Amino acid sequence: MNLRFLFEGMEEAGSKGLPELVQRLGAPGSFLDKNAIDYICISDNYWTGKTKPCLTHGLRGNVYFHLEVACSRKDMHSGVIGGSVHEAMTDLVRVMGSLVDSQGKICIQYIYDQVAPVTDKERESYNQVEFDVESYKVDAGVDGVTDTLLHKTREEILMHRWRYPTLSLHGIQGAFDGVGSKTVIPAKVIGKFSMRIVPNMHPDMVEKCVRKHVAEEWAKLKSPNKMQLIMDKASMAWYREPNNPNFEAASKATVRVHGIEPCYTREGGSIPITEALEDVCGAVCVHFPIGASDDGAHSQNEKIDISNYMNGICVLGCYIDEIARLPAKPNAAAQAAEAAAMAARMSNNKWRRRCKVQLTRFGCDCLDCQ
Amino acid sequence: MNLRFLFEGMEEAGSKGLPELVQRLGAPGSFLDKNAIDYICISDNYWTGKTKPCLTHGLRGNVYFHLEVACSRKDMHSGVIGGSVHEAMTDLVRVMGSLVDSQGKICIQYIYDQVAPVTDKERESYNQVEFDVESYKVDAGVDGVTDTLLHKTREEILMHRWRYPTLSLHGIQGAFDGVGSKTVIPAKVIGKFSMRIVPNMHPDMVEKCVRKHVAEEWAKLKSPNKMQLIMDKASMAWYREPNNPNFEAASKATVRVHGIEPCYTREGGSIPITEALEDVCGAVCVHFPIGASDDGAHSQNEKIDISNYMNGICVLGCYIDEIARLPAKPNAAAQAAEAAAMAARMSNNKWRRRCKVQLTRFGCDCLDCQ
Repeated sequence: MNLRFLFEGMEEAGSKGLPELVQRLGAPGSFLDKNAIDYICISDNYWTGKTKPCLTHGLRGNVYFHLEVACSRKDMHSGVIGGSVHEAMTDLVRVMGSLVDSQGKICIQYIYDQVAPVTDKERESYNQVEFDVESYKVDAGVDGVTDTLLHKTREEILMHRWRYPTLSLHGIQGAFDGVGSKTVIPAKVIGKFSMRIVPNMHPDMVEKCVRKHVAEEWAKLKSPNKMQLIMDKASMAWYREPNNPNFEAASKATVRVHGIEPCYTREGGSIPITEALEDVCGAVCVHFPIGASDDGAHSQNEKIDISNYMNGICVLGCYIDEIARLPAKPNAAAQAAEAAAMAARMSNNKWRRRCKVQLTRFGCDCLDCQ
Repeated sequence: MNLRFLFEGMEEAGSKGLPELVQRLGAPGSFLDKNAIDYICISDNYWTGKTKPCLTHGLRGNVYFHLEVACSRKDMHSGVIGGSVHEAMTDLVRVMGSLVDSQGKICIQYIYDQVAPVTDKERESYNQVEFDVESYKVDAGVDGVTDTLLHKTREEILMHRWRYPTLSLHGIQGAFDGVGSKTVIPAKVIGKFSMRIVPNMHPDMVEKCVRKHVAEEWAKLKSPNKMQLIMDKASMAWYREPNNPNFEAASKATVRVHGIEPCYTREGGSIPITEALEDVCGAVCVHFPIGASDDGAHSQNEKIDISNYMNGICVLGCYIDEIARLPAKPNAAAQAAEAAAMAARMSNNKWRRRCKVQLTRFGCDCLDCQ
């Protein structure tokens, strides 16, 4: 058996990042040659609780927009000019306010029509997930502030993290963002918002719906200001049924170390490199988290518990051992099924075909895409 | 004659700023003793054009609000938490979007009811003002962007700068404000907006109207998030009839240097120290600008033309000469009328009585106000 490791940050300075590196390493005879890779494992997410290990078989995608409004060549003084110009902030805030409501409902037409229906099997699957609503409130930081989540039951909460789209308003570039009181009328402001997307949503269709909505809301304003909507980047949602040898090996490793079957979970976040690796290597990926739900990824006081760290070393070691017991390639039937599924995905995937190198970026101008 | 000069920046480090300095210097026998000061002149604004000198007899006030919304103790990741919490940005943007429309109309009830009616005399006064709409578009920076102002005629434009209130959205603190795409759900965001106020508006009443409006809009959201509206600072509008010896001296000085009568103008901005000086010194102030309309105050490439600089030196010298020809105090009748007018202003001015030291700040905790 031959183990090949890729770490975040391995891409060279000035490169187009991990997608480009992966694409380059997929060349015949290279590090990620399709013929050399049989199984992929990423450890980059978290358990849903603090005690029960998980295997993750789904991720949401993300489509990120910049909504730019300009009213002048230069910032203005609200005393001197206030009352004279159509202010860019007024328009931007009105359009941003039309995208989503305070109950988290996306107000853009046709978005929910694209979401895969819930099956009985899926509904049942939430029962095996370790998830405590009260602990989750603490993880989200709403305890002592609102003590309230958008949804009440554990099933509803998980579904709205994993299998429904959401829209978040992240902020505004170009306006006054400091402490205190400044009386500026900003000349150009850029609203930032993004949508987490799920099966069977497609960035192409999402973009179309968002453009239609923004154009309609803009028309209502009757503003002479200059508006531009840019889709800055996009990634597809990822979903795999966990009944394949890779997930089975990860499950056996979990039982060997923790003495229990893992939960099968999905993630609300996006790890776009997953699909890029799968395509380049022609193999299925398992997401094999080792950290607990309260580790606070990318946040203040991020941590990993010593027990998770030690068990993580053991469980990934056992996983390698389990993988070593498998045939070099999955059996012919599984391989054929996976190839067919991948072909179907690609044929439905106009968007990804538009860029083979920068899979996470739309409208790429790389040589492969021209 | 005794000249006493005050420059911006003269206040000591750690002090409460110019209002406190002026108040302190107003003590009997001190620099701004009521008995020592007969006339006040401030040169801190601009002509309305590039050729005709102005005397300014009105300023708008400003009431500045911070609208704070909190949904969590910490910033969140839109993948991990998106779909679980009532997001603060959604609520904030919706309330900010309800304050003013794209045509500059303030959408808060009872605001326009407080505005002094337009008299025939006032309407006529706009004719003597040097003001070119096309040059103003360039000054505002809308040329080549929208080429459009909120109002069409010079009279309408001036009225909406000088004698009608306006509301500007300045920005948001606590949200993502950088270049690029960050998928944060901000935990606490503070929207900044302010209203330029005019005679006969009062910060107390403005605050009451804004609070009522924000509370009503907030209730519509049915959000569990924590909302707080803070009036950060406020200043009154200032207006004087220019038929008094101080303005007459400034007018004579203008004729001596420029050979023409000055325009009588108002300003859209606020110089709150004006009223503080008048109260402390018991005298009327004239605003005597020397710079042209395109000087670009506080903006990129701020300048002063050499001719304005040289004539400015002459005209302020002549003004001092003209003032020196006046009696040490305005005549008894004018003085009595001014005292009565000032007493009337103060009796109607609940807000200013709440703080004698920091006249520009509401809810002061200084010794004088406790």
